[in-house]
Amino acid sequence: MAATPHVPFHDPQSPVFRAHEGGKLGVHATQPLHDARDLSLLYTPGVAEVSLAIAADPCLSTRYTSRGNTVAVVSDGTAVLGLGDIGPLAALPVMEGKAVLFKHFAGVDAVPVVMETGTVEDLVETIVRIAPSYGGINLEDISAPRCFDIEEQLQERLDIPVFHDDQHGTAIVVLAGLLNGATVLGRPLAGLRVVIAGAGAAGVAVTRLLQRAGVRDIVVCDSRGIVSASRQDLTGHKDRLAATTNPRALTGRLAAALAGADVFVGVSGGTVLEEEIATMAPHGMVFALANPTPEVHPDVARRHAAIVATGRSDFPNQINNVLAFPGVFRGALDAGATEITEAMKLAAARAIADLVEDPVPERIVPSVFQDGVAEAVADAVHRLAPAGNQRNHPGSR
Amino acid sequence: MAATPHVPFHDPQSPVFRAHEGGKLGVHATQPLHDARDLSLLYTPGVAEVSLAIAADPCLSTRYTSRGNTVAVVSDGTAVLGLGDIGPLAALPVMEGKAVLFKHFAGVDAVPVVMETGTVEDLVETIVRIAPSYGGINLEDISAPRCFDIEEQLQERLDIPVFHDDQHGTAIVVLAGLLNGATVLGRPLAGLRVVIAGAGAAGVAVTRLLQRAGVRDIVVCDSRGIVSASRQDLTGHKDRLAATTNPRALTGRLAAALAGADVFVGVSGGTVLEEEIATMAPHGMVFALANPTPEVHPDVARRHAAIVATGRSDFPNQINNVLAFPGVFRGALDAGATEITEAMKLAAARAIADLVEDPVPERIVPSVFQDGVAEAVADAVHRLAPAGNQRNHPGSR
Repeated sequence: MAATPHVPFHDPQSPVFRAHEGGKLGVHATQPLHDARDLSLLYTPGVAEVSLAIAADPCLSTRYTSRGNTVAVVSDGTAVLGLGDIGPLAALPVMEGKAVLFKHFAGVDAVPVVMETGTVEDLVETIVRIAPSYGGINLEDISAPRCFDIEEQLQERLDIPVFHDDQHGTAIVVLAGLLNGATVLGRPLAGLRVVIAGAGAAGVAVTRLLQRAGVRDIVVCDSRGIVSASRQDLTGHKDRLAATTNPRALTGRLAAALAGADVFVGVSGGTVLEEEIATMAPHGMVFALANPTPEVHPDVARRHAAIVATGRSDFPNQINNVLAFPGVFRGALDAGATEITEAMKLAAARAIADLVEDPVPERIVPSVFQDGVAEAVADAVHRLAPAGNQRNHPGSR
Repeated sequence: MAATPHVPFHDPQSPVFRAHEGGKLGVHATQPLHDARDLSLLYTPGVAEVSLAIAADPCLSTRYTSRGNTVAVVSDGTAVLGLGDIGPLAALPVMEGKAVLFKHFAGVDAVPVVMETGTVEDLVETIVRIAPSYGGINLEDISAPRCFDIEEQLQERLDIPVFHDDQHGTAIVVLAGLLNGATVLGRPLAGLRVVIAGAGAAGVAVTRLLQRAGVRDIVVCDSRGIVSASRQDLTGHKDRLAATTNPRALTGRLAAALAGADVFVGVSGGTVLEEEIATMAPHGMVFALANPTPEVHPDVARRHAAIVATGRSDFPNQINNVLAFPGVFRGALDAGATEITEAMKLAAARAIADLVEDPVPERIVPSVFQDGVAEAVADAVHRLAPAGNQRNHPGSR
């Protein structure tokens, strides 16, 4: 297990523990069960007719079972919040919380599936085997670089949407903020110099989606400095990052990347000094997303940047994945989509950005509780699903 | 896939399909989520405290997550109802129905987990890996003999209750009926000659539990006839059956076993002729449990037997697993039991039998909808859990 930030204290009377007493999720029947007739419809002998119909036409399973509206929130507990590898049992409260958000914001029935960790192959085989139970797979808090291979292999093998929220949820909301931030500053995306601190799950996905949106000059830094083609220590996904980023072939530490940069995106959990932020180009943006402690305090960042965002709810511009994932899955499930494409992620980011009618420096993304966010994202995703498998699933309630 | 009994007909307007439209299960939050404060308690940053507490003391996971009240209903769809190997998607409506019953009768939150089939090892590894998500595992509709090894290996490896309902649920309710039937007929269990038609999941479990309850003379038949030590074609679980049953060393077909028998228990899905039933001893019992078509029609059986039971709701004495499994898991979860012991199964059977105040031939088991069945079973199971880990889980609501 990774070092924990403080010795945990179990106080059953505290608001947090009281809010978790007995867990946060329940299951309920959506059909009445009062008497023997109901029983004969919902269970034997009636259910046999439904089973036979599905055996003959598997597509009917999304109509006549709950899987059409059910997403598994899957984690092995290896990268939970900022707490590191705390294992599946300790990850479960987070996954239940995620399931609560799925239901609250988008009416998606999400069920936590926490699992003992293992090799990439172990996890992929397990998830593939249980996949018939679900209409989608939301991967969560799985450590990098395993998460990249796991997601890729699952997308290859399954015909339901697979979405690693730590990657793509973050990327979508960062892009939404960047779109409005660029509008506020009157800058085209293509001209921005962007520095991303963190080459893990979020850093990689943010890089890819920003590139897809037209950002050309991205420099990624890991704990050893700038990810550049000249480094000899890079393998796998970092090697690929080096090949597609850092167009000016910078080398050195984060400070070297920040000098003259327009945008800083921190998804590392590290820290950035004020004097480093001060070297950025004027009228820039700082997205310090580490939680609960941003890479640089927003009040400090604000002295040097025109727009500052964090992951926290007690400062302006909260970059929160909950703006994205409920609507993404709502749209994908309703559309019967078999995957979440890059185009869908871009459309989701634009839909979130468009919900802010008049963006200003203190408001580049909608509030988490603003009405209509999940619906707008769902519509954007739904529109991009291939024609022919559109359906209005009764789960969209 | 096994042959299906009729060509399935998908009529969306029929009562059965309408009752299944959109599925039968939903997930809901058990805690309010109205504003940013609620969000900070149920999700980040508050949830981190709960995760850290569980990482330090894993036992807290049953208190602060929903797993303490959650059972996985697991099937690979290889032996669904009487339909055979119809696969996981087609099994899902049955598992959802089971989950509805868990909730309705005992307040247990059950979630279906249907999986692609594979070797015994594949299924065991998959279930062990996802087990941290749940407080118990209800195995369902997994073909014999794989089900025996799967259950045994899971019980060995997991510290939560594992219960194959097709085996033990059936055995408990059959024993409950037999206990009251013997009382009605004034016969001690130990003196009964019992014939069991079917050496699959249910047949094996009924045999074992009846032996445990004191029945000494049991003859089991499979499709080739009496399971006896003289047969050369027996392996695995049937070999073990042969070693512990058939004390009079009978050989031949079912008819040879039935001659002079006091009790017939059909769990085979086959048929028995009236002239064979007629050779049983007078004042006997016929439990013809195949569904929807009993091995012998109850009206025919009634001509020769004092007590007749079936699996159907439209005849007296319905032997229905729902009398057992909700209460068994309710009791095990509330007790923090790590397994369902043989003693718990016996106690559950006695509790069900005791719910019939004055048993008569037409009423040896309670009705499925009789009040208090699950509670009585839960109490009986709870009392037998080892002292020290008793808990009143808030899930028992």
